[in-house]
Amino acid sequence: MLQSKIDNGSLIVGVLGAGQLAKMLANDAYRLGLRFATIEDKPGSPASFMTKLDFSGKGNDRERLDEFIRNVDVITLENEFIDPEILEYIEQLKPVYPSSKTLNLIQDKYTQKNTFRDAGLDLANYAKMDNIEDCKEFGARFGYPFVLKSRKYGYDGYGNETVDSEVEIERAYNNLTKNNKSGILAESFVRFTKELAVMVARSKNGEVVVYPCVETIQRNHICHKVIAPAQIDDKITEKAKQSAVKCVEAINGVGVFGIELFLTTDGEVLVNEIAPRPHNSGHYTIEGCYTSQYENAIRAITGLPLGNTDLIMGAACMINLLGERDGSGVPRNPDKMLTKKAKLHLYDKTESRVGRKMGHITAIATTVEQAVSIAEDAANNFKW
Amino acid sequence: MLQSKIDNGSLIVGVLGAGQLAKMLANDAYRLGLRFATIEDKPGSPASFMTKLDFSGKGNDRERLDEFIRNVDVITLENEFIDPEILEYIEQLKPVYPSSKTLNLIQDKYTQKNTFRDAGLDLANYAKMDNIEDCKEFGARFGYPFVLKSRKYGYDGYGNETVDSEVEIERAYNNLTKNNKSGILAESFVRFTKELAVMVARSKNGEVVVYPCVETIQRNHICHKVIAPAQIDDKITEKAKQSAVKCVEAINGVGVFGIELFLTTDGEVLVNEIAPRPHNSGHYTIEGCYTSQYENAIRAITGLPLGNTDLIMGAACMINLLGERDGSGVPRNPDKMLTKKAKLHLYDKTESRVGRKMGHITAIATTVEQAVSIAEDAANNFKW
Repeated sequence: MLQSKIDNGSLIVGVLGAGQLAKMLANDAYRLGLRFATIEDKPGSPASFMTKLDFSGKGNDRERLDEFIRNVDVITLENEFIDPEILEYIEQLKPVYPSSKTLNLIQDKYTQKNTFRDAGLDLANYAKMDNIEDCKEFGARFGYPFVLKSRKYGYDGYGNETVDSEVEIERAYNNLTKNNKSGILAESFVRFTKELAVMVARSKNGEVVVYPCVETIQRNHICHKVIAPAQIDDKITEKAKQSAVKCVEAINGVGVFGIELFLTTDGEVLVNEIAPRPHNSGHYTIEGCYTSQYENAIRAITGLPLGNTDLIMGAACMINLLGERDGSGVPRNPDKMLTKKAKLHLYDKTESRVGRKMGHITAIATTVEQAVSIAEDAANNFKW
Repeated sequence: MLQSKIDNGSLIVGVLGAGQLAKMLANDAYRLGLRFATIEDKPGSPASFMTKLDFSGKGNDRERLDEFIRNVDVITLENEFIDPEILEYIEQLKPVYPSSKTLNLIQDKYTQKNTFRDAGLDLANYAKMDNIEDCKEFGARFGYPFVLKSRKYGYDGYGNETVDSEVEIERAYNNLTKNNKSGILAESFVRFTKELAVMVARSKNGEVVVYPCVETIQRNHICHKVIAPAQIDDKITEKAKQSAVKCVEAINGVGVFGIELFLTTDGEVLVNEIAPRPHNSGHYTIEGCYTSQYENAIRAITGLPLGNTDLIMGAACMINLLGERDGSGVPRNPDKMLTKKAKLHLYDKTESRVGRKMGHITAIATTVEQAVSIAEDAANNFKW
């Protein structure tokens, strides 16, 4: 299963995209003795330096895609915003996971929510909004605040507007629809005590493994910290893990998936959304678990048995390193951090921007308190 | 310190050689956000696939070396058999560690032993052998068996002949001198209870860190298994670690060094030899320690602070996966191994040969017994 059909060498894993997720996929592919190919619109993304099989920015869109396809055995992605028609085109030529059908079920958040609701999952109230009247009706029925969201392409808070009362509807609706042809949905504002996330790997053979339920802590809508395992009741953990698996099965997902959930003030577990790829909330698995989310993504799409997802030491903490300036992506002084018992990952992005994900730090320990303490100490000592 | 002087991007680490040690150096360089370049005589070695900056097999020897040097910020090596004159040439153009002076002190094992003896280290009896008479004298003075060794280029049992009695001297001496212009030395056969190894990282700033003392178990003169930490008396551990540091300081070594030692039946700790590079006996540090030997090699040559060398869980076991056939380097069925709680490393060598190092498996645990048991179970379930 590890042999390439192209040159009788090792299997070549192609990734659509060359950002930090592709970079971490490449590292695990290389550790497993496999080869790595990538493609982006423009050259110079982090993973593009990691292989000769980099087709970024070459020729026109179709030419470079065709060359990429010819040179790989199996394809996956690091970004869910890819046009499902491109996946359909690839599917005629080479195996690609997740499939265009899976992507079609989740790229539009309204379709995603319908799919999950039909599979019996618990979600916040939601409805599609065709006009301002719909929004007013939603507010009247489910109360304020609620959130208006672009049905497609939203991330890290982009494409969201919170509506606190009826007078704010018009501004929020117009803001979101201005440059947006994908439509809008409304969702009740969830009063939560914790945000949770669960990674699930599902193989093309149908095998499923689930990672621990983790707590994610956001700052300005961007993931700041991940604590594994989440410090919650066992029943909540079980519910979150079962919900995550149901989500992946509902979309017939193959690969690795990040499922974000809310633990509400009422003790309910609601599915928020799914990412059909390795996820920021799963970076901790590289050091924290027997098999990382990246390795299991590769195993899933190549049909290898999925690996054990247990936490090696019992606990892990991941903290994102966000850009603190606009300019060079190379940190000036990470030295003090390097003396700590934590692992540093830097993504080699050419340019830093304030708030951009530039790297992360992971600490593992026998207790969550220790892991958090080591990771925080390391992150506080990292100087851009 | 992480910024390249070539293109203002991330620092480019160049490795002379593209085998599995270069591959594992590349993976840690990439995780740290750095870039990686390599050079070999011929194309197609494991690490050559991991970068566009691969100069293997290009142009003539000098042309490709010059292009390699132009394209990197700092250089290290994965093989001690490189001609020190090449290092001297490189030293005029770019920083390279270990230095030609260090290599000159260890490449010839007779010079190496003299250097270590002069630094006060304990060694087995040895002497240089200019002719068969010298061998007979050595046998008469120190007893049989003793070992005749090529002064240069020996590894994994190649270049060694054990001499059990005087009648065997002529055959052994002639065997070794036949294709060997580097000379011969004799060394008393050491009766040992364990073979030990210690990795030491020493920075260009003079900072030194020492890894745990491990036990290495050979089969047919090739490393089969590494157990960390070695199950020996604390005093022996201390002696081994102090000796290892002394060795590195005696050669003014910068980078990471593997020091092999014998624990004799008399309880003595004797230095066997040193490798001026990441070492098979240090593979376990990737998963087993807070900072791997590869990361500390990179830190040492770039002047970053060296990282913590403690065992994360208290114990680790590494088992080499040796080729079991001549032919393709791609394993046919690693599936069953992949369900175990151990990490698989495959080197992506194009060709397998019986006994060739094709990959390894590492398990970590809280006790040596557990780590060994997990690693052995995984290795026994790996099928080529």
